[in-house]
Amino acid sequence: MTLYKKAILPIGFKAHALNCGIRKSNKLDLALFYSDAPAKTAAVFTANKIIAAPLKINKKHLLMSRYFQAIIANSGNANAFTGTAGIKDAQETAKALSKALKIKKEEVLVASTGIIGKRLPAEKIKLAIPVLVKGLSLRGIQKAAHAIMTTDTFSKEMTAKFKLGGKQVTICAVAKGAGMIAPNMATLLCFIFTDAFITQGALNKALKQAVEGSFNRITVDGCMSTNDNVILMANAAAGNPLINTEAGYDLFAKALKLITLELAKMIVKDAEGATKFIQIQVLKAKSVLEAKSVALNIANSNLFKTAVYGQNPNFGRVVAAVGSSGIDVQEKKLSVKLSPLKKKEVSVQVSLGRGQAQATVYTSDLTPEYIKINAEYN
Amino acid sequence: MTLYKKAILPIGFKAHALNCGIRKSNKLDLALFYSDAPAKTAAVFTANKIIAAPLKINKKHLLMSRYFQAIIANSGNANAFTGTAGIKDAQETAKALSKALKIKKEEVLVASTGIIGKRLPAEKIKLAIPVLVKGLSLRGIQKAAHAIMTTDTFSKEMTAKFKLGGKQVTICAVAKGAGMIAPNMATLLCFIFTDAFITQGALNKALKQAVEGSFNRITVDGCMSTNDNVILMANAAAGNPLINTEAGYDLFAKALKLITLELAKMIVKDAEGATKFIQIQVLKAKSVLEAKSVALNIANSNLFKTAVYGQNPNFGRVVAAVGSSGIDVQEKKLSVKLSPLKKKEVSVQVSLGRGQAQATVYTSDLTPEYIKINAEYN
Repeated sequence: MTLYKKAILPIGFKAHALNCGIRKSNKLDLALFYSDAPAKTAAVFTANKIIAAPLKINKKHLLMSRYFQAIIANSGNANAFTGTAGIKDAQETAKALSKALKIKKEEVLVASTGIIGKRLPAEKIKLAIPVLVKGLSLRGIQKAAHAIMTTDTFSKEMTAKFKLGGKQVTICAVAKGAGMIAPNMATLLCFIFTDAFITQGALNKALKQAVEGSFNRITVDGCMSTNDNVILMANAAAGNPLINTEAGYDLFAKALKLITLELAKMIVKDAEGATKFIQIQVLKAKSVLEAKSVALNIANSNLFKTAVYGQNPNFGRVVAAVGSSGIDVQEKKLSVKLSPLKKKEVSVQVSLGRGQAQATVYTSDLTPEYIKINAEYN
Repeated sequence: MTLYKKAILPIGFKAHALNCGIRKSNKLDLALFYSDAPAKTAAVFTANKIIAAPLKINKKHLLMSRYFQAIIANSGNANAFTGTAGIKDAQETAKALSKALKIKKEEVLVASTGIIGKRLPAEKIKLAIPVLVKGLSLRGIQKAAHAIMTTDTFSKEMTAKFKLGGKQVTICAVAKGAGMIAPNMATLLCFIFTDAFITQGALNKALKQAVEGSFNRITVDGCMSTNDNVILMANAAAGNPLINTEAGYDLFAKALKLITLELAKMIVKDAEGATKFIQIQVLKAKSVLEAKSVALNIANSNLFKTAVYGQNPNFGRVVAAVGSSGIDVQEKKLSVKLSPLKKKEVSVQVSLGRGQAQATVYTSDLTPEYIKINAEYN
């Protein structure tokens, strides 16, 4: 298996992006991802009870069909908490795109990221659609990866290539960060494209596992987004022997896990204002869930995160965070190790002395720059 | 009922404080609170699973007796995560004080606040005890209120005086903030002294209710402390008709509630680095617990807190926080109101449209100064 830190679309997929005027600067703000053939699709959504309009549309469309051909995604506006008007805006966008692509509107998925509570300028998007469609290309993926960025300072792109039954299979993914990052899930948007020939069951299972081991293991600020959506499309163009939950599954799942974990780490490395990348490993827990919960409690402790920023080895704050996680931990069995804090990558190892399970979570430090970014963001 | 924003000890109580050398500066770091007669005592402790050595001692002593005469409290060292050595240190302090006061060591309560994970310099405390005891006076309470401060910029003091059966009853309380503030509880330390004649049952009930309505309604950073301890001592010197859970209870409970709420608000106003005092009111919830839980979720949202700091009316962040609180709220029934953010006191009103219950929580904004304080604190 070969991994690439850039997006290389599999055969049969195309993308393009442009500035349609949602963002005042000339920054790319509208991306289109397109599959020549209907592609089998799996998706994971935020656990927030208030979800953005595009997610409502996608959930509805996914109930009607499992085959999709297009994702249209904008940055600069989340189309969240926008009521029925927001749903109408997202629907009209999907409809306009479906006409331009000559597909059904139920074969379109929509995504938005940006400010919550403002009406989506659907007219601007509709006006841009013809140009967007005309510009579709294999290489357009880089532009598209940039168009979904908000406060990100670099695009998040990963590709895995591996052989299956003598055929080359590609999985390509793009994601965005960089604030309002917390499980479940913990990325704003991630779009994954593969030419694998795979059953719906295997596709769903692999995506769920990959998200659990990647985007659900990172936190920047403990704030759960209304717009999180990971979409995985498989167009079967590789011509590999069919992957199901047994045959070929391990390799496909491993590749997907690797690239989503890399994207998740990139999101943390590009976290708003971050100066440190922090790995928190909780060992000897009773269950993986327990280990993960304790690790996230440490990762979301502002006091711990500011101590790391200050290169101040205040392990008492780790202890306080462990104790407040609700787990019945005993002081005499608890051990905490901190790596030297001068380095850019820092690790914390906590042993609970309660069992054999473990989990690792990634986070960033809390800095004055995070506050500056979020005090001004609007 | 008359309220005073300063500590005025009831008859029969004395206090004193000095610098015993735990803190390198000349700042007061050791306080003694003393009751001439054994005083009926109620206490509430942090819900953190890792608790500091003094809390272990106090819990043990409270199982043995309900009558206490002294509280010795230090700042600069939390004596938390210090294992059996920490327990020994706290025990020796209590023992040395009991000898100097000629009382039993089980009549002494201990309290510590400061850095976690460092051995308490018990020798320094023991050496200071004779001077501490000698200096006890009614007016010593102001010094004592200052000695328990850590990053606080002002002392937190409140007194309530009211008549009961023709007798004047006094309740006097001192507390400290100013970081690691989150329920349950949400003050580091609070000591309350009253000359009321009251049953143990009424004392316990009134304290529990007061803490629930005050210290459990504030959060600064969502970080739960290992050292939280509220102690209420009643010496019966006022000579009022006995208060039980019926007779006289409402007046006593109301006074206690008022002064603890004022102290809680002072803690938020003096929160580390804070520039804003934020009141979050959640209305039309199914239960008080639900309302409180949603309010705390907003209050602990870094994105919301930085928006308030930036005077940026980003109500989408309130919506995202409501949605992530786990409550099954419907977007169309949810309403959010923000007061103008230019003022020093800001209020948020959220209506869930689910029922008739409500709760109010207080918090502060998240600022670069909070990070500076906590990056350097050690």
